[in-house]
Amino acid sequence: LDVNKSPAPPWDTVAILGVGLIGGSIGLALRSRGQARHVIGIGRRESRLRVAQQVGAVDDFYTDLAQGVARAELSIVCTPVSHIVAQVRQISRVCPAGALITDAGSTKAGICRDLDRLEGNGTFVGSHPMAGSEKSGVEFARDNLFQDRVTVVTPTDSTDSGAVQRTEAFWAAMGSRIVRTTPEDHDRMVAEVSHLPHLVASALAAATRPENLIFAAKGWRDTTRVAAGDAELWRQIFSENRGHVLQSIDDFGKVLAAFRDAIAEDDRDELLRLLQSGKQCRESVGS
Amino acid sequence: LDVNKSPAPPWDTVAILGVGLIGGSIGLALRSRGQARHVIGIGRRESRLRVAQQVGAVDDFYTDLAQGVARAELSIVCTPVSHIVAQVRQISRVCPAGALITDAGSTKAGICRDLDRLEGNGTFVGSHPMAGSEKSGVEFARDNLFQDRVTVVTPTDSTDSGAVQRTEAFWAAMGSRIVRTTPEDHDRMVAEVSHLPHLVASALAAATRPENLIFAAKGWRDTTRVAAGDAELWRQIFSENRGHVLQSIDDFGKVLAAFRDAIAEDDRDELLRLLQSGKQCRESVGS
Repeated sequence: LDVNKSPAPPWDTVAILGVGLIGGSIGLALRSRGQARHVIGIGRRESRLRVAQQVGAVDDFYTDLAQGVARAELSIVCTPVSHIVAQVRQISRVCPAGALITDAGSTKAGICRDLDRLEGNGTFVGSHPMAGSEKSGVEFARDNLFQDRVTVVTPTDSTDSGAVQRTEAFWAAMGSRIVRTTPEDHDRMVAEVSHLPHLVASALAAATRPENLIFAAKGWRDTTRVAAGDAELWRQIFSENRGHVLQSIDDFGKVLAAFRDAIAEDDRDELLRLLQSGKQCRESVGS
Repeated sequence: LDVNKSPAPPWDTVAILGVGLIGGSIGLALRSRGQARHVIGIGRRESRLRVAQQVGAVDDFYTDLAQGVARAELSIVCTPVSHIVAQVRQISRVCPAGALITDAGSTKAGICRDLDRLEGNGTFVGSHPMAGSEKSGVEFARDNLFQDRVTVVTPTDSTDSGAVQRTEAFWAAMGSRIVRTTPEDHDRMVAEVSHLPHLVASALAAATRPENLIFAAKGWRDTTRVAAGDAELWRQIFSENRGHVLQSIDDFGKVLAAFRDAIAEDDRDELLRLLQSGKQCRESVGS
């Protein structure tokens, strides 16, 4: 009897598809928190997978999906949103019976609708860890990326409740605070607090004349920072969440027009009131 | 002969009117860089001035402006833009003959026009150090706030060239990179790279439903950060620079509409092109 033996980790083999900032941070957190006996990275480019192994995000890696997930009780798909549905279906065909599959996609309604009646061995539960930044690549991964960040878990009416609980336990073990919503509610909310800010930041950067960039100080830098994010990844997110994003742009447009009117009419009380309402909202959230 | 004597500092007595983040950082930089023999803080509230003295931003302080500037070869007015003109005029009446007066206001055209034929003992040169943040108060002051940041110096046709050179030497000694423009060019440029980002950040924060704030992750936090700035201070800036700010809002509105159209029409190539143009512009500036 070895009394010093650590308790068995909750997961034996976990596969991570797409080992960039998010996937790499999941790997680091799984390993540093003793959550998995074996963490496998799966991707297309061996050179990137090798970096993931070097930084300690994965134990092993495969470029072949079927080999990578063959023994994975849990697979997490951390690829761009337009790839997720096809890859989850592919995993479900080759993973062990009863395996759990989740994702880290920034949109949920389309993905969860398409995967609601998943064929094969796997059960899918949609997730969205609301962490990350304009940086991508496993070089920026860190084991506390999800600490105190919200992860939204989005079951549908037909999702197995045991699978939902296992998914939530997984993200809680990553340090996340769990919020459970429908996929549709998720997409409506993130359109406002994530997709719109990205779009506004990008439009602001795109509207800046290059000759004025020498004057870009902290305000411009903060406000446009996320515009440095991956353009194709965000193109997919906007396309996928089109309806809600358009609605959020229009809601924002009305508030922007109110600011414009107050300045144009030199309505100082109204302008101050608008600025105070923005300040109050911003201050209710941490730095 | 004392061979270890330090060289005489370039300024004997410097007065700082308004000892908050900007004024306090000037005081700290003057003292840590050996630029002044005596740094005097001037303000309305003795309690704040006492804090400025405690953090080492000023040697002495006065709540009476005439007493504070009586021996100041250089006065720097770091108060909200709507106070600057009256205070510079007041300083000019009581400062020593030949004294230099400058400011740190975020708008320049109105101030420099009103102060172009300054009566009294002083000579005014407009300045705008493009540093600072959403934080205010001398508690956040630091002696490297201006290091490698641009300070715009805005002489008019009738500004004495020696006074301009002394002003530029002062900001260069603070660590700033100097850019000289007309007051009008300054206001047009900062409308785009400073006032517009603030307005957009504030509108974005104001447009966010409180119940969605739980989902506010790094993108929302970065993009709205400056909205936490002082509302009345920014109200004055927008009022003062109205024409250029309105033009910048309209220019931004066109780019935002282009993003909206590309999403509405599901024009993926155009949407990608727009996102790439924002990314490219953002990446051309540091973090």
